[in-house]
Amino acid sequence: MTEVKAVRSGRQARQTQRATRGGGMGRPYIIRNIPTYDVLSEENLIKIETTADRILAEVGIEFRDDQTALNHWKTAGAEVDGLLVKFPPGMLREILKSAPSQFTQHARNPANNVEIGGKSVVFSPAYGSPFVMDLDRGRRFGTIEDFRNFIKLAQSSPNFHHSGGTICEPTDVAVNKRHLDMVMAHLTLSDRPFMGSVTSEARAEDSIDMARIAFGADFVDKNCVILGNVNVNSPLVWDGTMTNALRAYARANQAAVIVPFILGGAMGPVTNAGAIAQSLAETMAGCALTQLERKGAPVIFGNFLSSMSLRSGSPTFGTPEPAIGSMVIGQLARRLNLPLRCAGNFTTSKLPDAQAMTEGTMSMLSAIHCGANFILHSAGFLDGLLSMSYEKFMLDADLCGALHSYLDGIKIDDNELALDAFREVGPGNHFFGCAHTMANYQTAFWDSDLADNDPFEKWEAAGAVDAATRANTLWKKRLAEYEAPALDAGIRQGLEEFVAAKKAGIADMWY
Amino acid sequence: MTEVKAVRSGRQARQTQRATRGGGMGRPYIIRNIPTYDVLSEENLIKIETTADRILAEVGIEFRDDQTALNHWKTAGAEVDGLLVKFPPGMLREILKSAPSQFTQHARNPANNVEIGGKSVVFSPAYGSPFVMDLDRGRRFGTIEDFRNFIKLAQSSPNFHHSGGTICEPTDVAVNKRHLDMVMAHLTLSDRPFMGSVTSEARAEDSIDMARIAFGADFVDKNCVILGNVNVNSPLVWDGTMTNALRAYARANQAAVIVPFILGGAMGPVTNAGAIAQSLAETMAGCALTQLERKGAPVIFGNFLSSMSLRSGSPTFGTPEPAIGSMVIGQLARRLNLPLRCAGNFTTSKLPDAQAMTEGTMSMLSAIHCGANFILHSAGFLDGLLSMSYEKFMLDADLCGALHSYLDGIKIDDNELALDAFREVGPGNHFFGCAHTMANYQTAFWDSDLADNDPFEKWEAAGAVDAATRANTLWKKRLAEYEAPALDAGIRQGLEEFVAAKKAGIADMWY
Repeated sequence: MTEVKAVRSGRQARQTQRATRGGGMGRPYIIRNIPTYDVLSEENLIKIETTADRILAEVGIEFRDDQTALNHWKTAGAEVDGLLVKFPPGMLREILKSAPSQFTQHARNPANNVEIGGKSVVFSPAYGSPFVMDLDRGRRFGTIEDFRNFIKLAQSSPNFHHSGGTICEPTDVAVNKRHLDMVMAHLTLSDRPFMGSVTSEARAEDSIDMARIAFGADFVDKNCVILGNVNVNSPLVWDGTMTNALRAYARANQAAVIVPFILGGAMGPVTNAGAIAQSLAETMAGCALTQLERKGAPVIFGNFLSSMSLRSGSPTFGTPEPAIGSMVIGQLARRLNLPLRCAGNFTTSKLPDAQAMTEGTMSMLSAIHCGANFILHSAGFLDGLLSMSYEKFMLDADLCGALHSYLDGIKIDDNELALDAFREVGPGNHFFGCAHTMANYQTAFWDSDLADNDPFEKWEAAGAVDAATRANTLWKKRLAEYEAPALDAGIRQGLEEFVAAKKAGIADMWY
Repeated sequence: MTEVKAVRSGRQARQTQRATRGGGMGRPYIIRNIPTYDVLSEENLIKIETTADRILAEVGIEFRDDQTALNHWKTAGAEVDGLLVKFPPGMLREILKSAPSQFTQHARNPANNVEIGGKSVVFSPAYGSPFVMDLDRGRRFGTIEDFRNFIKLAQSSPNFHHSGGTICEPTDVAVNKRHLDMVMAHLTLSDRPFMGSVTSEARAEDSIDMARIAFGADFVDKNCVILGNVNVNSPLVWDGTMTNALRAYARANQAAVIVPFILGGAMGPVTNAGAIAQSLAETMAGCALTQLERKGAPVIFGNFLSSMSLRSGSPTFGTPEPAIGSMVIGQLARRLNLPLRCAGNFTTSKLPDAQAMTEGTMSMLSAIHCGANFILHSAGFLDGLLSMSYEKFMLDADLCGALHSYLDGIKIDDNELALDAFREVGPGNHFFGCAHTMANYQTAFWDSDLADNDPFEKWEAAGAVDAATRANTLWKKRLAEYEAPALDAGIRQGLEEFVAAKKAGIADMWY
């Protein structure tokens, strides 16, 4: 743990952040100073846990196309019948005791190392959309240029702590080679921690091999430097592609992020308590498999609940039921003593408009309140997760900035309580120029990059511009001003040679 | 208390709401099924309370232009020196013990009575803006027609529980007569509870007299039927206009809502803990004054913290510091055992855009989490509280709908836990048509009136409309479809005669 060294106090970090606004780094991560929001009683949590145990023991989970996983389960004492695995109650909890409750993910710039677990909160951009959008060109397939642009935008914002993974799909690069270009971009255009590929075991291993070039093979064997985000094929199926990738990360002592994606009514029941029990069952199984592959490997307990429109059957995001459900998932993850991944800033809106930010803010605050340590999808999603929007990315980044102050909570000391200020100012006077205000105003309030707080007349005279248009201006400015962080020439060469050799060895594949 | 009779269960109410969507009524109010979000330890709450006590005892509060208020304080044992009143520690808490922790505000339709206090949550529209806005005509001064329109829009939405008060200023009616037209509009166009005037003692009394016509004088003496929202002239000044109105409401056994408006750095310190201590001191003094006027009168503990832009000095709304501060105010109000008013859906944006709903949602969720029983400003504000927006009103109303489901929390029983559904569906299949889904889908998820959840292609083919434009269409539809609730002809005639007589007696005044 490098917690003590790496993290400055909230106030100091905010000063640093303000001083370097626009191009520099803020805090490496946040340490929450407000409690988690626990909405369910222990009695009811136990009812959910009991239901999860019964799903695991009585219905079971299928593990497809991965004989090694089935062998692991057999050895561990599960009941394996063909592909179906049934777990005696308590077995997974026992296995999970070897997983660390908190770990450090190292960045190639050690000042950007993040803690994952405990009271830490890490913001990472959105992940996985095939399309990108901006106000100038509308919706189109993502390219490697878009991918690099989003890494640059994340790196140049003090409001993120992580470079993310597949920020958008670079669809102009062959499917079997794009992981190389993506990892290359993270390691060269950002100096924050990042995520690798999971779309096959070989691509996961390529990603980890590239991390070994950047960090050294010995270091990687002992420390987490890369995450891999693997999804359950809900309901109750783990696909071999995912478990092979999961095991590759665990084997290398790197952290798999285990995430069911449950759209209530489709991949799970329409009732929240049932969907939560399912999520718990599926995630425990995935997390436990990492421990069977390598005892003590870091792993993150993930969560992705969603709902659907009852009129059309379309998926919905940023709705109230999953927001509350995530809070319960947080309570359950803490009872397992595992780091928690959640996500926010979701929306089905196709524009960076009022709907986008209502749904986005509700889901993002849920991720904050549930105690998530690693918040994927912190910025950029529109269009039901299908598009990364340049403007939404900037709007979300601004919200991430606000959430730094939110998570700092309330400080209580004589200066904050300000009794002397009341004595100085007295009834009926203002605090504008008083000594207390002069001593504190520079660090008092979070300062938005995008909100327009001007009076109406001034705003109108300046062109009556809306927030999305301001975000459009800002992302272009940030891209124009972007400077790549320094990188050791030997490491760069090693990475380039690795990528060139890998690409030369195989023909392009587009599936 | 009419709690048992008036409130249907969340599930039943949602069914009713769905059945009557678009023109009817939902639940009379919400009973929260999730806990409040308590962010500060008792130790730190006591430090804030001690600071408030010292502000009250050592700095004091001025009471201007109200000799009766000064006499009340003298009799109660405060130290009165000219206009300045200093309060011995503990004195206000002792006085406040006579205020009810919960009370019923009666509506002229008893089915719409609301409980204020305990676990109840009541949504009321925004209050007090001089301007109105819509996408067609932009910003202009509010008129009585706008005022009536907003009452109609609130009444026709199942997502509100209260008709509000000065929803916008009807600036085309003389200042000394507009309270008559406003109360008339609430009593004829809505059958929900409402608020009266506070801009002078006589106008407060006119408002209460009109309530007596609608409810009967005896009933009004024994029951709360009207609220009056009074503001502290922060810092540490109570203006005579406000205390005279406050006393008029208390004298009539009606509920004053006591609200400091503290913009950190202007009317209070820039540090959150100090602003909270000030808010507590000012609110306790106002609440206690109601009890000195009439022991046992209902009163609501109010709160309005805000921040400012450090670059321009402009007020900011929907920022993180007041969101967290309000949570602490909630904890303090519960320690006083008083019903709590908070507010949300604030923004400085001049458009119903992404900024408006980011700031709005953050502030509204803070009001939800802090345990507010009466949420003023639930819908409509743009422009730093200066404008009521027709489109923002509809967007906020939709969020209020979502918050009904949010506050319902997670239900835990065998149907919700859905173990049988997992047995039926099994691994790898979908839940679309399963028995559990068929039995539950109609009530499973909140259904937005405004969100577009369609796939991109369908949305694009339908005109690529943004959320604000959809809101524009919806408010026009709702106004066109509006039907006034039934009103006893004798009461209507009594109200009309009262208003006519009052108006005939005095010349128009425009200040």
